[in-house]
Amino acid sequence: MQFLLEVVDILTNYVKKTFDRSTKVLDFHHPHQLLEGMEGFNLELSDQPESLEQILVDCRDTLKYGVRTGHPRFFNQLSSGLDIIGLAGEWLTSTANTNMFTYEIAPVFVLMEQLTLKKMREMIGWPGGEGDGLFSPGGAISNMYSVMIARYKYFPEVKTKGMSAAPRLVLFTSEHSHYSIKKAGAALGFGTENVILLSTDERYLKKKKKKPGYVPLFVNATGGSTVYGAFDPINEIADICEKYNLWLHVDGAWGGGLLMSRKHRHKLNGIERANSVTWNPHKMMGVPLQCSAILVREKGILAGCNSMCAGYLFQPDKQYDVTYDTGDKAIQCGRHVDIFKFWLMWKAKGTIGFEQHIDKCLDLSQYLYNKIKNREGYVMVFDGVPQHTNVCFWYIPPSLRGMPDGPERQEKLHRVAPKIKAMMMESGTTMVGYQPQGNKVNFFRMVVSNPAATQSDIDFLIDEIERLGHDL
Amino acid sequence: MQFLLEVVDILTNYVKKTFDRSTKVLDFHHPHQLLEGMEGFNLELSDQPESLEQILVDCRDTLKYGVRTGHPRFFNQLSSGLDIIGLAGEWLTSTANTNMFTYEIAPVFVLMEQLTLKKMREMIGWPGGEGDGLFSPGGAISNMYSVMIARYKYFPEVKTKGMSAAPRLVLFTSEHSHYSIKKAGAALGFGTENVILLSTDERYLKKKKKKPGYVPLFVNATGGSTVYGAFDPINEIADICEKYNLWLHVDGAWGGGLLMSRKHRHKLNGIERANSVTWNPHKMMGVPLQCSAILVREKGILAGCNSMCAGYLFQPDKQYDVTYDTGDKAIQCGRHVDIFKFWLMWKAKGTIGFEQHIDKCLDLSQYLYNKIKNREGYVMVFDGVPQHTNVCFWYIPPSLRGMPDGPERQEKLHRVAPKIKAMMMESGTTMVGYQPQGNKVNFFRMVVSNPAATQSDIDFLIDEIERLGHDL
Repeated sequence: MQFLLEVVDILTNYVKKTFDRSTKVLDFHHPHQLLEGMEGFNLELSDQPESLEQILVDCRDTLKYGVRTGHPRFFNQLSSGLDIIGLAGEWLTSTANTNMFTYEIAPVFVLMEQLTLKKMREMIGWPGGEGDGLFSPGGAISNMYSVMIARYKYFPEVKTKGMSAAPRLVLFTSEHSHYSIKKAGAALGFGTENVILLSTDERYLKKKKKKPGYVPLFVNATGGSTVYGAFDPINEIADICEKYNLWLHVDGAWGGGLLMSRKHRHKLNGIERANSVTWNPHKMMGVPLQCSAILVREKGILAGCNSMCAGYLFQPDKQYDVTYDTGDKAIQCGRHVDIFKFWLMWKAKGTIGFEQHIDKCLDLSQYLYNKIKNREGYVMVFDGVPQHTNVCFWYIPPSLRGMPDGPERQEKLHRVAPKIKAMMMESGTTMVGYQPQGNKVNFFRMVVSNPAATQSDIDFLIDEIERLGHDL
Repeated sequence: MQFLLEVVDILTNYVKKTFDRSTKVLDFHHPHQLLEGMEGFNLELSDQPESLEQILVDCRDTLKYGVRTGHPRFFNQLSSGLDIIGLAGEWLTSTANTNMFTYEIAPVFVLMEQLTLKKMREMIGWPGGEGDGLFSPGGAISNMYSVMIARYKYFPEVKTKGMSAAPRLVLFTSEHSHYSIKKAGAALGFGTENVILLSTDERYLKKKKKKPGYVPLFVNATGGSTVYGAFDPINEIADICEKYNLWLHVDGAWGGGLLMSRKHRHKLNGIERANSVTWNPHKMMGVPLQCSAILVREKGILAGCNSMCAGYLFQPDKQYDVTYDTGDKAIQCGRHVDIFKFWLMWKAKGTIGFEQHIDKCLDLSQYLYNKIKNREGYVMVFDGVPQHTNVCFWYIPPSLRGMPDGPERQEKLHRVAPKIKAMMMESGTTMVGYQPQGNKVNFFRMVVSNPAATQSDIDFLIDEIERLGHDL
């Protein structure tokens, strides 16, 4: 127990320093450097035990060479920040060290999950918060669930007979949707070629409907895309889905949090018409990783799709109401307790606290957008005001500003963001993502979900991009 | 930070009491009782925040009404115990709050995962520890990976074209294997009817091979079955797989830990001939939940099977060696850091420490088996000495001992284990699992994986079964 308290001491010091802007976000080293052993930090495992003192050193080193995702200047992923209540919740979860599959060994957590999912369904707008759901290990798996359930709804015999019992099925998803829909298509036996990317403007769906031998099954609308933060027009898509009797899934992994905000929830208008929704509190709502929910409007279908009735876990002759044993709804057997930290944060903040956090993050993005939209050396990647906290832009170093557009300039510009990012990581001052998209060369994608970030951190990021990129 | 330390105080007290045998394993309540609010423990969420004081009360209540899975007398699941090093590791993991998908934001954890997986592959016996692998959210998902990879190996075009690009594929798995193989069959589009349960004695495989229109793809051999703890004869199965060119997977979720023991690893002889292996350190090795590995002998196939090359995460133009970005190998996008607690425990115990733990648990099971095999009122479910820590038995209350065998006695016996279990849970003294299996009525399945358990706890369990069951 003394050991545990010494680790706590290391951890609380780490947390304090993480919130201190004079601390570096990271102390970058290449894989081979860490593998060679930094100042005695030996990653290799051996037959003989190490002393507890050495274990404490290992803990310190692990944190030292890691990345401070809670740092106010860490903007690299959709998930960032370090909420102390959420952290305490996660510590309690690991101390309880149990499993969500039965009420028997996780009575409190199972009930918390049920109540929280109901609350989320109410916010989606399903009547009475009815329906079903689960917390799953991440948005990709939540999206995979939606495809599985859609298939079970229309072709339940696939569960027993396999894909040969169904016609050739097609999944539709918006062009900028997350790659996990394609991944689900590959894994579940649809094939990536049968996952059709479409821009909703094209009304591609109608055309596809007529292609012989292909049966449309499922449409994914994105509520907050990964790179642009764009929201598909859910109502329009829902009209098409209703007309053609297709399953409508809304991937709100990133944007679902906006349902908490009276000011911004209109961006998800129509979500109440979806058959299923992915919503990751570990992204926009600052809940520690992992915390992702798949929510389903129809009751019973999740269990219908996945249950195998394993006798050793789900005995029907238990003394309690076994409908509380949720394990057979999942594709997992054991399932990590992801609910408690979220439940505890909700208790501590109230719905109103999440709303304030979300509104503040969107305000900060607006601040960034206003700051750079007409600033010399910046070009926005898409027109108009960002709908989410994503602000996508090119930084044009002075050397490229006078250059005529063309392949040479594009090629040079393509190398700017990676170079700045590499220097950022080496100086350890801040982190922000970049990527190409379609025929667009590498650009920065700034996102804000970190509760610790302020306007001064946005200013710092811009200063840093200019400092590092000025002479490129 | 003061708040966090107060939570730590609650947690360390909880841990201390968990190891104290005078503490109850659980304080059982029915779902409706907890939902009605026990002594003010209100599970409902609301718009307004709660005070931090109330949050601390919530934490205490959550633990109070939960189940102490680390208690020396908790034998209910394959995962039990509470290792303090592992717990500290998990606290550090949640404090670091990062994601395994890129080296960029999880440099140390990514390397720890690689080194640990290599070490595990060495213990399996693959030359030079070569191959690939991932930690996944549980054994069911690890098993699902094995089926996906097998399909990709023999029919890579299924990834793009779907199951219609392959003939009707059949998966084989041993009769007592875990239900997750069937679940994978349903999810991945094979269909549960094409997951054939077989006893290896039947040599069913050969017959099936000849059935027209069906192509055998994959065989799962179980290394430590869930209920009986039985080990399939891997070498015999490997011979058949080699002859017919089938993928051999070994589900060592439960039994894999025995590879750590020089005394017991022979039970997995032949595992080095497998194409893939599931091994859950969170079961037999006492690592906190969740910690499950899928290990693959062939390098590159995991990425081949699952990669989608998402540009926003896996940029090829990063400054470091991007082969360390492991995310595209996974069916998940974000992936929880499951490695650190395991790595830290391995450092602290050494391989030798895991070996001692495993040998001790098997000795305890042997002790239980010797104690009850000839004891009045006990009937063993299967013949011979247990191969793993599973000891399966019926307790026959005195009222049934004189009764002739037949449907009436079977029906009565079927109700004994659930009744004793219900009383156990209500008195909160200990927990052990039960289930029916095939035509066998409900029996107890005792398993030992808890490092805190001793012979006195085994004695206690038997006394308790007799105390509660005597008058049934």
